[in-house]
Amino acid sequence: MTAASAARRADPDALIGAARDGDARALARLVSLVENSAPQLRPIMQAIAPATGHAHVVGLTGSPGVGKSTLAGALVRHYRDQGHRVGVLAVDPSSPFTGGALLGDRVRMQQHATDDRVFIRSMATRGHLGGLAQATPQALRILDAIGFDEVLVETVGVGQAEVEIASLADTVLVAVAPGLGDSIQAAKAGILEIADVFAVNKSDRPGSQELIRDLRTMLAMARYGPGDWKPPLVPTTAATGAGIDELAAAIDSHRDWLAASGQLLDRRQARARGEISAIALGELRQRAGQLPGASRLDELAERVCAGKLDPYAAADELLARS
Amino acid sequence: MTAASAARRADPDALIGAARDGDARALARLVSLVENSAPQLRPIMQAIAPATGHAHVVGLTGSPGVGKSTLAGALVRHYRDQGHRVGVLAVDPSSPFTGGALLGDRVRMQQHATDDRVFIRSMATRGHLGGLAQATPQALRILDAIGFDEVLVETVGVGQAEVEIASLADTVLVAVAPGLGDSIQAAKAGILEIADVFAVNKSDRPGSQELIRDLRTMLAMARYGPGDWKPPLVPTTAATGAGIDELAAAIDSHRDWLAASGQLLDRRQARARGEISAIALGELRQRAGQLPGASRLDELAERVCAGKLDPYAAADELLARS
Repeated sequence: MTAASAARRADPDALIGAARDGDARALARLVSLVENSAPQLRPIMQAIAPATGHAHVVGLTGSPGVGKSTLAGALVRHYRDQGHRVGVLAVDPSSPFTGGALLGDRVRMQQHATDDRVFIRSMATRGHLGGLAQATPQALRILDAIGFDEVLVETVGVGQAEVEIASLADTVLVAVAPGLGDSIQAAKAGILEIADVFAVNKSDRPGSQELIRDLRTMLAMARYGPGDWKPPLVPTTAATGAGIDELAAAIDSHRDWLAASGQLLDRRQARARGEISAIALGELRQRAGQLPGASRLDELAERVCAGKLDPYAAADELLARS
Repeated sequence: MTAASAARRADPDALIGAARDGDARALARLVSLVENSAPQLRPIMQAIAPATGHAHVVGLTGSPGVGKSTLAGALVRHYRDQGHRVGVLAVDPSSPFTGGALLGDRVRMQQHATDDRVFIRSMATRGHLGGLAQATPQALRILDAIGFDEVLVETVGVGQAEVEIASLADTVLVAVAPGLGDSIQAAKAGILEIADVFAVNKSDRPGSQELIRDLRTMLAMARYGPGDWKPPLVPTTAATGAGIDELAAAIDSHRDWLAASGQLLDRRQARARGEISAIALGELRQRAGQLPGASRLDELAERVCAGKLDPYAAADELLARS
C-alpha cells in the first residue's frame, strides 16, 4: 500500500470522494465501517448528511422460496438499463450452514459484480435482536449520499424482519408466489398491511391466478380512504424478466404518490426518529455496560435461575449504580 | 363483582393461589398483567420466583404452512393424555387482517379451551422490535410457577423470531414439511442450527422422504462432538396424530440430555441474562424517554431529514441532558 492510499483509507472525506467517483473498494470500506460501528463513522455521517435524501429506498421481502433474490437481480438489471446507479443491501441470517456454498442466489447477482454502478452487499445480522435496525439505515445513508438512485433492501423471511423493513423503506415490495402455502398464511404473517406493491412472482406456475384473486379479496377487506394508496398486484416471472418493467413502473408510481401526498417526508421523518432513538439507546446500553454492576450479570442470572431473585429485582441490582 | 372477588383481583398472592388451583380466569389475568407491563407485575414476579424452574419450555417454529398450530394441538393432546398440565403461548403478528377471522388454526385448538389443565394464549407482538423477548419470558415464568409441566411457545415465520425462540426455549422444535420450497431455503433461513428436534410434518405427502434425506445431508455437514446432541428427524402427520408419540419421546430425550449434560442450566442462565438485560434496558429506555430532550425527537428527525444534522449528532443532542 502506498502512503497516499494509506492516507486515503484513513481520511473520511477522501473515502467519500473516491466512492462518489465510482471506487467500489472505497464504498465497500465505508459500508464496513458502518457494520463495525467504527469510530470514523461519526465524521463520515456528519460529512454526508447534506447529500442525503435523494435515493429511493425499496424494501423487498417475502417468504423463503418466492424468488426474492431473482427479483432483486431483475430489478437491478432494469434500473441499470435506465442508467441508474443501484445498490442492494441483502439482510441475511449469517448461518454457519450458509457460509457461501448455499448462497446460490447471491451468485446469480454476481453478473453485476464488475459493474461499478451496481453495489451489492450482504449485511450480517445473526444474533442481534433488531439487527436490521442497527447498521442498515446507516449503510442506506452512505449509498444515498454517494449518489445511488435506487437502493433495494432485501430481507429473508417474514415476521420481525418485515416489520423492520417497513420502517426503513420508502416503498415496500412484497414478493409472493403460488404453491408456497395458501394466501391465508401470507395474511397471517402480516405482510398484507406493510405492502406498497405486490410482485406475484413465478406467475407462470399453476395457482398464480388464484393467488392474485385471493390477495385481491383480502385487500378489499381493508378500508382505503379516497386519497389512499392501494397496493397494486404485478404478475412477474423474474427468471425470464417478464413483468419487471411493469413492476418498476408500479414502484415509480408509488414513489410519485409518496412525494405528492406528503407521505415521503412523513415516512422519512419516522425513519429518522427510529434511527436517532436506536443510536441513543445503543449509547445508553453502552453506558450501562460500562457500569461496575454489569459485570455482575452472570451472578444475577444464577440467582434468578435458582429462584432466589426475580428478573425485575435483578435488573434493579444491575442498574443500582447508574 | 363481589367485594371478595374485587379484592382477589387486586391481590397478587390471591391471583397466584387461584391460578394454581386451576382458576383459568386468574391465570389469564396474570398473563394480561405481563402483557400490559402492569405495576402489579413486580410483586407477582417476586412472589413466584421460588416456584420457577420446573416447566419444560418447548419452542416450536417453522415456515408458514408447515402446520405448526396443528402440531401444537397434537402435542397438547398427547401431554394432556399423560396427565400433564400444558400451556401454549402463540406469538403471532397481530395484523389488522387477522383479527380473528383468519385464525382458523387457533380455532382448531379450541377443543382444549374448556380444559383447565390446558392454557392457550396468543401473545401480541406487532410493532415491537424484539417483541417476543419482552413479555413472553415473563408469561413463561408465570405458567412455570403455576404448575404447568410443559409450555409450548409457538412462533410464526422464520428470521428474527426464530433466533429469539432459540434463546427462550429449553428445546427448539423446528417443523418442516415437503412442498414448501426446497430444503436449501430451510437452511438459508437459519433454522438448522437452532433445531434440537425436527418434526417432518405432512409426512404423508410426496417429497417427505427427499426432505428427510436432504436435511440428513445438511446436518451431516455440521460437526458434532462426541457428547453433542444430534437433532433427530421425526416424521409426523399432525392432522391424524401419526408420529406424535415419537415426537414427544424425542423432545423428552432432549430434555434428559440437557439435564445430564449440564446444558439445561447453561441455557436457562443465558435466558435469565437476556431477561435481566432486556428489563434493565427497558428501564434505561424509559429514563431516556423521561428526559426533557426526548420531546425534541421530532424536531431532531426533521433536521436529519433536511440533511442539517446526522443521526449520531442528533442522538447526542437527545441525550445531552442525561
